[in-house]
Amino acid sequence: MSIDSNSPIGIFDSGIGGLTVAKAVMQALPNEDIIYFGDTARVPYGIKSKSTIQKYSAEITRFLVGKNVKMVIIACNSVSAVAKTVVTEAAENLPVLNVIDAGTKAAIKTGKKHIGVIGTLATVHSGAYKKKLLKKDESLTIKSKACPLLVPLAEEGWTDNDVALRTLSIYLDSFKKNGVEALILGCTHYPLFKKSIRKVFEQREIEIIDSADAVASSARSRLRKLNLLNSSNKPGNLSCFVSDHPQRFRELAERFLGREIPDIYIKQLLE
Amino acid sequence: MSIDSNSPIGIFDSGIGGLTVAKAVMQALPNEDIIYFGDTARVPYGIKSKSTIQKYSAEITRFLVGKNVKMVIIACNSVSAVAKTVVTEAAENLPVLNVIDAGTKAAIKTGKKHIGVIGTLATVHSGAYKKKLLKKDESLTIKSKACPLLVPLAEEGWTDNDVALRTLSIYLDSFKKNGVEALILGCTHYPLFKKSIRKVFEQREIEIIDSADAVASSARSRLRKLNLLNSSNKPGNLSCFVSDHPQRFRELAERFLGREIPDIYIKQLLE
Repeated sequence: MSIDSNSPIGIFDSGIGGLTVAKAVMQALPNEDIIYFGDTARVPYGIKSKSTIQKYSAEITRFLVGKNVKMVIIACNSVSAVAKTVVTEAAENLPVLNVIDAGTKAAIKTGKKHIGVIGTLATVHSGAYKKKLLKKDESLTIKSKACPLLVPLAEEGWTDNDVALRTLSIYLDSFKKNGVEALILGCTHYPLFKKSIRKVFEQREIEIIDSADAVASSARSRLRKLNLLNSSNKPGNLSCFVSDHPQRFRELAERFLGREIPDIYIKQLLE
Repeated sequence: MSIDSNSPIGIFDSGIGGLTVAKAVMQALPNEDIIYFGDTARVPYGIKSKSTIQKYSAEITRFLVGKNVKMVIIACNSVSAVAKTVVTEAAENLPVLNVIDAGTKAAIKTGKKHIGVIGTLATVHSGAYKKKLLKKDESLTIKSKACPLLVPLAEEGWTDNDVALRTLSIYLDSFKKNGVEALILGCTHYPLFKKSIRKVFEQREIEIIDSADAVASSARSRLRKLNLLNSSNKPGNLSCFVSDHPQRFRELAERFLGREIPDIYIKQLLE
């Protein structure tokens, strides 16, 4: 089976968060079919060792390649930080995009010099965004802040109640004070807090960089360049594969995606 | 090597939360040595399948048996719910205690008829406390509520700030309204919220059942009965083994334990 412009786009994440990427891709490329894989049995990746993350990522990439995808999008920050090369190898000659590269590029494009990065403990400790940003422009000032409560708040559906707003004010307080001009949402769950983040910054102008939108827009340009854009006029299909617990995935998925999930399949992975 | 009254007590958990059990055991039995195992590489267990939890639990129990422990305490609610038999087998002839049995017994002992249970999604969905309570007294009224934000709040150190108090009021609102008289803390992280829970209930009398205290008190009576209480007058030692990331464990451990952790060893486990 060889790929062509009708082949689907493969997107994967350690769990459910990558659906914000799937949503952004569906908006940017409404006629593309998408195969999403969420490793719900082994989430979270952030606490696992580099070699384990690499092993899991290669396994999932081979699964997507087997589904005849024309492009692989790494929608997980932990995988983007430590397993980009492994995924690129496993993807054979397919184009591979990832949220960290896309988010970094979008941040540079704003022209802002004071950049804030928020993410999970693992992403912030890895320093992946900071290193990539400084490599592109060493005159930037980068401040990072781990926000470990935002993922569970998003999964609880508390993205704009008083608990969410108070939590965001505590986390973003130093950014408000030290004049951050652009804020990278370095975790796939965080786009759900965009409105609340704007509320917390009140009058202060802040450019919010959503890696999901950034990677979706990279995907569109790359497919156009490769002449692989789906020429169909029909809305694309989304198929979701998870490694465990489809029911919990379904419940959360509709919140992350803003629409019903039609099909969920379970793929058994080795533990 | 055979066990005697000088042998240590083995305690294990999927991660760090079981240290609240270690703390309670140290208070109830100050002269006992403790070997603690936290499976920090594979936490959380709640989202894993029954067979995976059983496999991991047997592996850890064999590790503790190899350390010559005289008793095994399961400080993890997910393991207590699905792997008690497996642990008992792996522990050979050693006494095995677990937080769910101990918490249930303590709740029955209060004589209260309206009992609330809070825990993680996995514990609440398993219905383990409810089933055990109703088996002992079918006239009880049991209300359960999953409180998924409490673990990350405890790990962030936010146990009595405004975010924690507001979160608890939302979670406990229905318990306040429907006249719950006793509340089981069905997660090892929750004892850190005891004071804040009392604040949220304000004037309402509520008996809080802390499984950590309950299992520590069961351990004392069982060792006494078996004539295995340590006769030493010296304060016991605590040794902690983790499967990954000792630094993060150390940072959190001191908060959970209320004192410095002297020794942490890493035990490599199969992924």
